[in-house]
Amino acid sequence: MKVVSTLSELRSARKDLPDPFGLVPTMGFLHEGHLSLVRQAKQECRSVGVSIYVNPTQFAPTEDLEAYPCDLEHDLVLLEGAGADLVWTPSTGELYPPGAQTWVTVEQLTQVLEGAQRPGHFRGVTTVVAKLFNAFEPQRAYFGQKDAQQARVIQRMVKDLLIPSEVIVCPIVREPDGLAMSSRNTYLKGPERGAATVLNRALREAQASFRSGVRAAEELRKTMRKILDHEPLAQTQYVSVADPDTLIELEGEIERALLSMAVYVGKTRLIDNILLVPEEG
Amino acid sequence: MKVVSTLSELRSARKDLPDPFGLVPTMGFLHEGHLSLVRQAKQECRSVGVSIYVNPTQFAPTEDLEAYPCDLEHDLVLLEGAGADLVWTPSTGELYPPGAQTWVTVEQLTQVLEGAQRPGHFRGVTTVVAKLFNAFEPQRAYFGQKDAQQARVIQRMVKDLLIPSEVIVCPIVREPDGLAMSSRNTYLKGPERGAATVLNRALREAQASFRSGVRAAEELRKTMRKILDHEPLAQTQYVSVADPDTLIELEGEIERALLSMAVYVGKTRLIDNILLVPEEG
Repeated sequence: MKVVSTLSELRSARKDLPDPFGLVPTMGFLHEGHLSLVRQAKQECRSVGVSIYVNPTQFAPTEDLEAYPCDLEHDLVLLEGAGADLVWTPSTGELYPPGAQTWVTVEQLTQVLEGAQRPGHFRGVTTVVAKLFNAFEPQRAYFGQKDAQQARVIQRMVKDLLIPSEVIVCPIVREPDGLAMSSRNTYLKGPERGAATVLNRALREAQASFRSGVRAAEELRKTMRKILDHEPLAQTQYVSVADPDTLIELEGEIERALLSMAVYVGKTRLIDNILLVPEEG
Repeated sequence: MKVVSTLSELRSARKDLPDPFGLVPTMGFLHEGHLSLVRQAKQECRSVGVSIYVNPTQFAPTEDLEAYPCDLEHDLVLLEGAGADLVWTPSTGELYPPGAQTWVTVEQLTQVLEGAQRPGHFRGVTTVVAKLFNAFEPQRAYFGQKDAQQARVIQRMVKDLLIPSEVIVCPIVREPDGLAMSSRNTYLKGPERGAATVLNRALREAQASFRSGVRAAEELRKTMRKILDHEPLAQTQYVSVADPDTLIELEGEIERALLSMAVYVGKTRLIDNILLVPEEG
């Protein structure tokens, strides 16, 4: 496994690796969710590259950029074990050359859910991911369903900009108690860790309602809110029952939906989601 | 020379062509300016592709999208003669898939000159050119100095987004009487054609002043305006003496500058420019 930091080292190392090449973009502090992406990439591609970069432009000034956890040494051990061939750990100067002023934006899809709560977040994400596509020139790129809206936004960007790569979205990996894996779970202190399972519990309860025949979008939202409201350490930011493609909030009877939420547990903002499809009904 | 219209045909034809591959993006109705780009690309690359596409998103509703001239049959004869290997004539549906909502924007560089007069123009240009880079995957791309700001904006985009291509800017090609070649010259009727040389005459006069030692930016602007004001068929939109890199308007003594202008001759909007460099002083 080769670890490089400059763009020219990356391009040179990439040239020596066989196609199809799979890319897994990360912000480091890797967990089983990230590693599942690397392993799937390794199964489907002849070589696999990973980027580790905490992208400042996707954090608002009020967010946790400075506090974002990192442990590069441990990340590299995990990536070696998962079969990565190439790791890029760029400096900000490599990804944002002096005077950089170019942005990639996806419009409608980024106006709702996370985009509504975190203005500018997706502009940062799409811009840096567009750069990563150009730096690695992968045939496939792997993203987690945990960040469901991010995955849709990147699929849209790749389609719209004719980026010659396929976006592959991999399932959420969860802790044994159901908490979706996230680097931010490390922020959870004491009883917050147990309370954090409330997101998954709310989603499961709504899924169970759907499976038992409930089709009213507002009914499903109420089911989730009720569970969330019952957890004293949790403060709900939003609960959504949305069209899985457009991410527009659904009203009335639904056939399929993306159920998602953002919830503060203590000071830690967590997100989770589940896809409801007709076969589940 | 292969002529294709769908993206999948393009990708397949591109795969069969050897690298380095040079791209010449055009809006068709080709003249010697375009052909000089194709010939230079052919000299420097093993294969050359040309796109012909009148990109609607770079035209404002008030502009000449509907009237923009075209003659595909003639264009193809010219391109064959200039040595192009591949021509892409995409439909709008290929470049803007249904539901397309992704934009590439360059910020500061697009706020002045053409960008100030044509809001949204450069967003259309950078978005479609980003798509063309992804569709052709060229090692080099050729643009004309005629659209000086466009060339700077695209160089900036390529650098900022880490697009793995080199942007090459080629000199303006002029008619024998000095008029810069442009597909829009076809709009000029009767005496307008002769009057249109006023742009080049104004630039040459300012260049002569610079060579004779004049260094005051405002003096150079006055020289150009005086020539332009003397032509009854011409209506000046702007005259600029700007920093060639930042495109910011210069005041006081200059060392080097991009002199540029937009002038209506009758109803036809024409642009022209010249670069003043110290060696010329």
